Amino acid sequence: GSSKAEEEKQQVYFSAVDGLKKLYKQKILPVEELYKFNVTHSAPLSDADFDAKPQVLLLGQYSVGKTSFIRYLIEREFPGAHIGPEPTTDRFMAIMHGAMDRVTPGNALAVQADKPFRGLSQFGTAFLSKLECSQCECPILENVTFVDTPGILSGEKQTIGRNYDFTGVMEWFAEKSDLILLLFDAHKLDISDEFLRVIESLKGYDEKIRVVLNKSDSVEQQQLMRVYGALMWSLGKAMKTPEVKRVYISSFWDKPFQNDQNAELFEREREDLFKELRDLPRNGAVRKINDLVKRTRYVKVHALIIGYLRAQMPSMFGKAAKQQQLLDNMGEVFRAVMREYHIPVGDFPNIDRFKANIRDYDFSKFPKLDLNIIEQMDKVLARDVPQLMDQFPSEREDQLLA
Amino acid sequence: GSSKAEEEKQQVYFSAVDGLKKLYKQKILPVEELYKFNVTHSAPLSDADFDAKPQVLLLGQYSVGKTSFIRYLIEREFPGAHIGPEPTTDRFMAIMHGAMDRVTPGNALAVQADKPFRGLSQFGTAFLSKLECSQCECPILENVTFVDTPGILSGEKQTIGRNYDFTGVMEWFAEKSDLILLLFDAHKLDISDEFLRVIESLKGYDEKIRVVLNKSDSVEQQQLMRVYGALMWSLGKAMKTPEVKRVYISSFWDKPFQNDQNAELFEREREDLFKELRDLPRNGAVRKINDLVKRTRYVKVHALIIGYLRAQMPSMFGKAAKQQQLLDNMGEVFRAVMREYHIPVGDFPNIDRFKANIRDYDFSKFPKLDLNIIEQMDKVLARDVPQLMDQFPSEREDQLLA
Ligand SMILES: Nc1ncnc2c1ncn2[C@@H]1O[C@H](COP(=O)(O)OP(=O)(O)OP(=O)(O)O)[C@@H](O)[C@H]1O
Ligand SMILES: Nc1ncnc2c1ncn2[C@@H]1O[C@H](COP(=O)(O)OP(=O)(O)OP(=O)(O)O)[C@@H](O)[C@H]1O
Ligand SMILES: [Mg+2]
Ligand SMILES: [Mg+2]
Repeated sequence: GSSKAEEEKQQVYFSAVDGLKKLYKQKILPVEELYKFNVTHSAPLSDADFDAKPQVLLLGQYSVGKTSFIRYLIEREFPGAHIGPEPTTDRFMAIMHGAMDRVTPGNALAVQADKPFRGLSQFGTAFLSKLECSQCECPILENVTFVDTPGILSGEKQTIGRNYDFTGVMEWFAEKSDLILLLFDAHKLDISDEFLRVIESLKGYDEKIRVVLNKSDSVEQQQLMRVYGALMWSLGKAMKTPEVKRVYISSFWDKPFQNDQNAELFEREREDLFKELRDLPRNGAVRKINDLVKRTRYVKVHALIIGYLRAQMPSMFGKAAKQQQLLDNMGEVFRAVMREYHIPVGDFPNIDRFKANIRDYDFSKFPKLDLNIIEQMDKVLARDVPQLMDQFPSEREDQLLA
Repeated sequence: GSSKAEEEKQQVYFSAVDGLKKLYKQKILPVEELYKFNVTHSAPLSDADFDAKPQVLLLGQYSVGKTSFIRYLIEREFPGAHIGPEPTTDRFMAIMHGAMDRVTPGNALAVQADKPFRGLSQFGTAFLSKLECSQCECPILENVTFVDTPGILSGEKQTIGRNYDFTGVMEWFAEKSDLILLLFDAHKLDISDEFLRVIESLKGYDEKIRVVLNKSDSVEQQQLMRVYGALMWSLGKAMKTPEVKRVYISSFWDKPFQNDQNAELFEREREDLFKELRDLPRNGAVRKINDLVKRTRYVKVHALIIGYLRAQMPSMFGKAAKQQQLLDNMGEVFRAVMREYHIPVGDFPNIDRFKANIRDYDFSKFPKLDLNIIEQMDKVLARDVPQLMDQFPSEREDQLLA
């Protein structure tokens, strides 16, 4: 169970998320709807998107101990789990909190409005039949959701066995996760080309990635140094960033250490990883605020562009020609909006995608620009969000990249 | 002192080198002279080139403990050594065996026929005044020569202080060395851009490079893991090869370990490095044989090309025009030689450099091709070299890349 201080942190977290939800529904969603934000950006956010627990995604070759890792962390068996020396987990499994033990198959899961997995329908039923949600009663799962994944195999087996977009699915989960753990087995280090390809596809989520060198107690120390060195050597090559990834060197299951020469190191590393996991909810809230700030800025620029396009349209003759002219000179439109409203260039959408998405709408039917609405957006950014942030103790505010 | 078995190994080494010298002088040097090999390749080899002890080159940022490392290995002070926490070694210093303590300055060193440093004159007196040879009586130095180098500094200081081609000099030593040790300080890991540039310039000598993580006993274990990981991460990026570099994690001086948590690891790593150094003479002989095999193949091809060019020249009129035509179609010449004598393409010299070097000679004055000489070269490769190789026990024969 969690201590009183932790419970209080929890409360802060929940009330911050509630605040965010309200802010979004009252002040941002109406503007999205009025100016058809979903035409050029993503669909409106649902409650489930805000409520989603911080999510930890586990990746690794088969048998490195991914499923055992989750079992160890949540301190109990969970329904549908299989652990064994052969490739065992053949599906994606979200391990979530639930009052009762239950396994929900993927096709059902993808239509549940209260779970954040509806976006997975895009990968088709071939994939959904390889997706499950495991729920059980467990205090730790009240704060965090784990996503277990099928072990990555080397060579042919991979492509033959999988008739869905494996990398695409991985990326989908990576985007939605707060932490991505790459697990390796110190006893049998294997960094296959397949795994390197998956790592490469996670480029955009680099700051979420941590590495676990599991089963580190099963080799003697000189061997451990060689394995660890080889791991860092390869990861340094595979990841383009200069920042070194944090590697947790330990063993994550409930058996005592086999080789206890490094017991102290292993204990500390375990503690460090636990701490990082405990901090997830709080950082998760900061991330959600951060995401909403980004979205609000996009919504504002979107409204300005739509309003500008509308204002250029003639009231009677020559609409089609004018619309074509605006489309052809969209760069000029963007620059005009940028100058008039002092918008940084980074807030503008990708111009080609914007043109492609907006092309078939009748610009003259767009709503006029309402400067009150823009002012309201500015207030959200300048007043409402900082107010929400104030609810947090100060340590991590620098993470808000607004 | 060395054991009886080691002394025997020594004998084998010396007699192999003597055999090589004889082979070169009797069968290869005359061909080099006859066909002017030095015009397109390097100058004839001298005794000093064959006699040179296996050489260990030390590189690293300042104060990582390069000079202390040498002092520790040879188990005594050596003349001219300076050790201290500030940048101390400001010159290149060859530490060699000698009956008496003596320091020879670079300008004198570069003219001594019995030392393998004459090639360094090319870097000018500005460099030679930053070169020294330290000699002393010491059994270890009978088997190996060390080259201490000025610590690499970060930032400006580097270029301001040095008015010679630092990277060029490093490369020269790298080519002549049997082992290149990159030293790092676990207590103050610093991998400056300058150092990375030096590492990059050593690309061609990759298989000689080893890494030493020195002063590993001065940090506690978790910190050591972070430092070591960061080192491997950066090295993996800097070195293009997939093979992981061997890193010796220990402390190389005669004080007891500060943090003896990892004493056993440190001891073993030290032993492993000692073993690698002990094996140098033997591997050095293999390398020398290997180099001579390469050279012999180049000499053979060179003779074939020269003889071919000579054969194409008219006996009386139109010499200049024919020579120009041959120069213009050197690719055709190479292909003709390749076909006629079944020479692998890898044995041919760089065509542009060859043309530039041969251009000013009168082809009609070249000696005619003597097929007996070619046959003799083939015998050197097929019979004499294998005979020399047979003097060695079998373990490392796979290193001969003939
Ligand atoms: N920390 C550990 N130390 C040693 N052995 C372990 C450890 N964790 C798990 N194992 C063993 O490794 C094997 C694989 O474990 P597990 O099934 O959890 O791996 P996995 O990564 O989920 O594999 P898959 O990709 O096939 O699902 C099992 O035999 C398990 O008992
Ligand atoms: N193994 C070691 N552990 C701890 N300290 C060491 C060790 N080796 C050397 N030192 C200390 O580090 C400092 C630098 O040593 P040293 O002069 O040998 O380094 P260096 O690499 O030769 O430096 P420079 O590049 O300036 O010549 C000295 O104070 C020395 O006593
Ligand atoms: Mg599993
Ligand atoms: Mg020094």
